[in-house]
Amino acid sequence: MGIPLLNPPHLTHPLTDFPYEERRLHPFRRYDLIPLDQRGVWLLRCGFVQLTTSQLSGDEVILGWVRPNEFVGPWFTRLTVYDAIALGDVYLQWFSLEEIEDSTELMRSVLHSTRRRLQQTEAILAIAGQRRVEDRLIQLLILLREELGEGQPGQPWIKLPIRFTHQTLASTIGTTRVTITRLLGKFQREGLINLGSDRHLAIHHSLLNA
Amino acid sequence: MGIPLLNPPHLTHPLTDFPYEERRLHPFRRYDLIPLDQRGVWLLRCGFVQLTTSQLSGDEVILGWVRPNEFVGPWFTRLTVYDAIALGDVYLQWFSLEEIEDSTELMRSVLHSTRRRLQQTEAILAIAGQRRVEDRLIQLLILLREELGEGQPGQPWIKLPIRFTHQTLASTIGTTRVTITRLLGKFQREGLINLGSDRHLAIHHSLLNA
Repeated sequence: MGIPLLNPPHLTHPLTDFPYEERRLHPFRRYDLIPLDQRGVWLLRCGFVQLTTSQLSGDEVILGWVRPNEFVGPWFTRLTVYDAIALGDVYLQWFSLEEIEDSTELMRSVLHSTRRRLQQTEAILAIAGQRRVEDRLIQLLILLREELGEGQPGQPWIKLPIRFTHQTLASTIGTTRVTITRLLGKFQREGLINLGSDRHLAIHHSLLNA
Repeated sequence: MGIPLLNPPHLTHPLTDFPYEERRLHPFRRYDLIPLDQRGVWLLRCGFVQLTTSQLSGDEVILGWVRPNEFVGPWFTRLTVYDAIALGDVYLQWFSLEEIEDSTELMRSVLHSTRRRLQQTEAILAIAGQRRVEDRLIQLLILLREELGEGQPGQPWIKLPIRFTHQTLASTIGTTRVTITRLLGKFQREGLINLGSDRHLAIHHSLLNA
């Protein structure tokens, strides 16, 4: 499973009173597909995982992002096409479904993670239902800033830890790649977003009032 | 709260070994808005509840349906506009968040309900991301048949317990009311769907292969 675990990562959000801190960390690199197994779930301890499904046309639709201390696995979906991709170096811990059923601690963690995943998925669905494409993209960028953004609260610019293709953004909100490219260009000229040399989006807080 | 509880309903899906069977049932009638309170959640014991959010344009977007033995409440969402509407006569039981935190039984029920809600929301999101409108509508009808359909497995026609407006179907999959009306007319001529005298959709199993 990928890179050897020489230097266990600094856990960005260690769980307080979580009796599994010392459990083995499985490392994956950026763009690795996380192997999913019906018998259990992964707990993400560090990094981000993107969930997608594919259409017959081959386009990807983003279903959401798993954040540190959230769980991922086929147990959470009924879709037959369901990919979990590491968006950078990630570290995961494995838990079997039996362990979760047997432990109130674990069940509480899985419940809170599932609730956050539901809230996020619902938010993306509400955005996809907006009538105007420009409103959809603004709201998706605001959601990305909130869910994935790195930076201090109160800072005007928040940078995303992930690079998104225009096609992925397009499929997620039901529009074309060309429209995304045009709108992102417009937002950039208006000073609402910025693209660093590493092509990561940075989002200005004034986008919230756009 | 609505109609007096003269005749406690026949619970369609009584929970086995559920220690709360005898808890008070709160009745609501069709199209009643279920009052949502931050301090707790409702357990739906009978009937269906539809979850929607509204856009600035006034259009409703369906976020999903709550089925018997699933929970509903503001605890499950972060959207500020979030309506839960009874789709027929429904009966609900109230549980406080403290009760859920304190009971492994209840927590397990809430976890499984939250997981089912996540799976359903994700399925609607995957449908909304399909490129062709006709594919979106076919898949939404198949999902409605699976999630809400009344009838024996193996029966060719499954009738929905709920009437949907063409506008609601349109907003959910990001298209216009006119397109929905045209496509439903086409599906009806092809024998894939049927409208009874009560205007409830019945869906033929051959739609699954359309």
